Amino acid sequence: MTVLILTSQEDVTADLVVAELRERNVPLLRFDPADLPGQAGISTEFERGDFTGYLSTDGRLVSVNSLRSVWVRRPGQPAAHAPEPSEWLTAECGQALYGMLYSTEARWMNHPGAALLARSKPWQLRTAHRSGFAVPPTLITTYPRAAKEFASQFKDIVVKTVSGPPPVNPPIALPTTRIDPETDFSGVAAGATLLQRYIPKTADIRLTCVGGRLFAARKTAASGQVDGRYGFYGHLWGAVDVPDRIARAVREYMTLGGLAYGAFDFAEDEDGTWWFLECNQGGQFGFIELETGQPIAAAIATWLAAPRTA
Amino acid sequence: MTVLILTSQEDVTADLVVAELRERNVPLLRFDPADLPGQAGISTEFERGDFTGYLSTDGRLVSVNSLRSVWVRRPGQPAAHAPEPSEWLTAECGQALYGMLYSTEARWMNHPGAALLARSKPWQLRTAHRSGFAVPPTLITTYPRAAKEFASQFKDIVVKTVSGPPPVNPPIALPTTRIDPETDFSGVAAGATLLQRYIPKTADIRLTCVGGRLFAARKTAASGQVDGRYGFYGHLWGAVDVPDRIARAVREYMTLGGLAYGAFDFAEDEDGTWWFLECNQGGQFGFIELETGQPIAAAIATWLAAPRTA
Repeated sequence: MTVLILTSQEDVTADLVVAELRERNVPLLRFDPADLPGQAGISTEFERGDFTGYLSTDGRLVSVNSLRSVWVRRPGQPAAHAPEPSEWLTAECGQALYGMLYSTEARWMNHPGAALLARSKPWQLRTAHRSGFAVPPTLITTYPRAAKEFASQFKDIVVKTVSGPPPVNPPIALPTTRIDPETDFSGVAAGATLLQRYIPKTADIRLTCVGGRLFAARKTAASGQVDGRYGFYGHLWGAVDVPDRIARAVREYMTLGGLAYGAFDFAEDEDGTWWFLECNQGGQFGFIELETGQPIAAAIATWLAAPRTA
Repeated sequence: MTVLILTSQEDVTADLVVAELRERNVPLLRFDPADLPGQAGISTEFERGDFTGYLSTDGRLVSVNSLRSVWVRRPGQPAAHAPEPSEWLTAECGQALYGMLYSTEARWMNHPGAALLARSKPWQLRTAHRSGFAVPPTLITTYPRAAKEFASQFKDIVVKTVSGPPPVNPPIALPTTRIDPETDFSGVAAGATLLQRYIPKTADIRLTCVGGRLFAARKTAASGQVDGRYGFYGHLWGAVDVPDRIARAVREYMTLGGLAYGAFDFAEDEDGTWWFLECNQGGQFGFIELETGQPIAAAIATWLAAPRTA
């Protein structure tokens, strides 16, 4: 029974999990959809009710019927490395590959159908509310007047992206930013804009959930600091206990979303409340493991290596 | 309670359903994501566990909490009509819009998460097998040798696209085509290729499933005809009864896929067997309704107009 890891060759975070799986002698195949067709190949046959499928890359061939799990890490776009890439070739190869994998009994971290919903910020906020987290009042709008009213009501607010930074190369940073409630909001009409009540925070919290295991880390915030993801403020991540209420809410969120992995970001306020900011279903964990020593890669390997019936 | 129809303005098939809903005085909003932001707008607010959301277009404003259903017909790409469209603006507006809709209790025809799987041909073939349909032996491969072996085994075969025709404008036809089993298959290495045993057919069958209602239509095939979608062979679509075994398999397929709508294509052979070719979860139905008089638009309107608890 093999673990399939869908990711690019340059993904050093995946290397941590690969090392854990190798140590346990769990067979694995690292496969980049961008290499299909060419360095990588697939073949699926349907005959008289039977279904057989194979993936190959780097000279290795694996039957999809023997897959125990699929880890969707940082897969390249199908056919991206083809000599003549095109939108159509990507569609042909992508549907052939993912459709074959959807047809297996493998466990997914995370299933693309679940990831589709879990990536969207409104779904995250709604699901966080339903799960029992404290969530800062938030507005997502294309109406300048709605933005102005929200700013008047909450005074101290931040603006952040809905979908993440622009998909450009080299990447650009677009940190969460405090804005004056008297700002001219007319630009809101040009694109969906996310405004949120600012939470004065004592610390950033990153909670990584792997199956049923929770790893929380805390980094003390500098005074007035808004977005801890950019810049160094003299504090490192350290492991911290997970309050019971948070643990229950995390498990509820994962169940509602059908997720096996999630990286939750919270702002801790003066009262010690953890305010839900977002949950990245494909979030990084290497930097947390590095600073806290929490065995996240090992937990992912354990989840991926478990039998299909688990 | 409002029905939301996500589609472009030029969609005449949607017009049929809109007319049915208007006749029944069911409130509806026709919304094209391409018009967002600009002619269309959205606003979602999350506060103390409450969630409110609004969609507006053409000067009308609808609360998403009052949506009874969402019909995903032929929606444009979010922000496609913006003065300065970009991949990022599409992501920002798309996540804001669909995330808001995922957060509602509305019924979907079809939910994008279900559509994601249902669009892929390997998933369709696998699910058709599991549902009890007769499915022609099929190979999807990037290996010339596998293609050659399949051709040698089945002799009379066709080639078709995995994902549909290339997404170009003006559209090009790429009909299913019979090929010589002695063909040079080396080109298979350049892209995922779908080969299928040719089914000599007496008729094409199109079965449209709307919720629990089935509408089957039959068109006599010309001798040796392969792909009935292109060209006119002197026969029209006529309504036909659905065999019990097919009805059971269709319902199983819809359940496995979490689908509310599906357009099934079959090839009827000399023995009267209906061979599953594909199920298009967003397939057209206007041409069938026109020739058979089957009330498909009315059935869709009935499904969309039903209460949320149905």
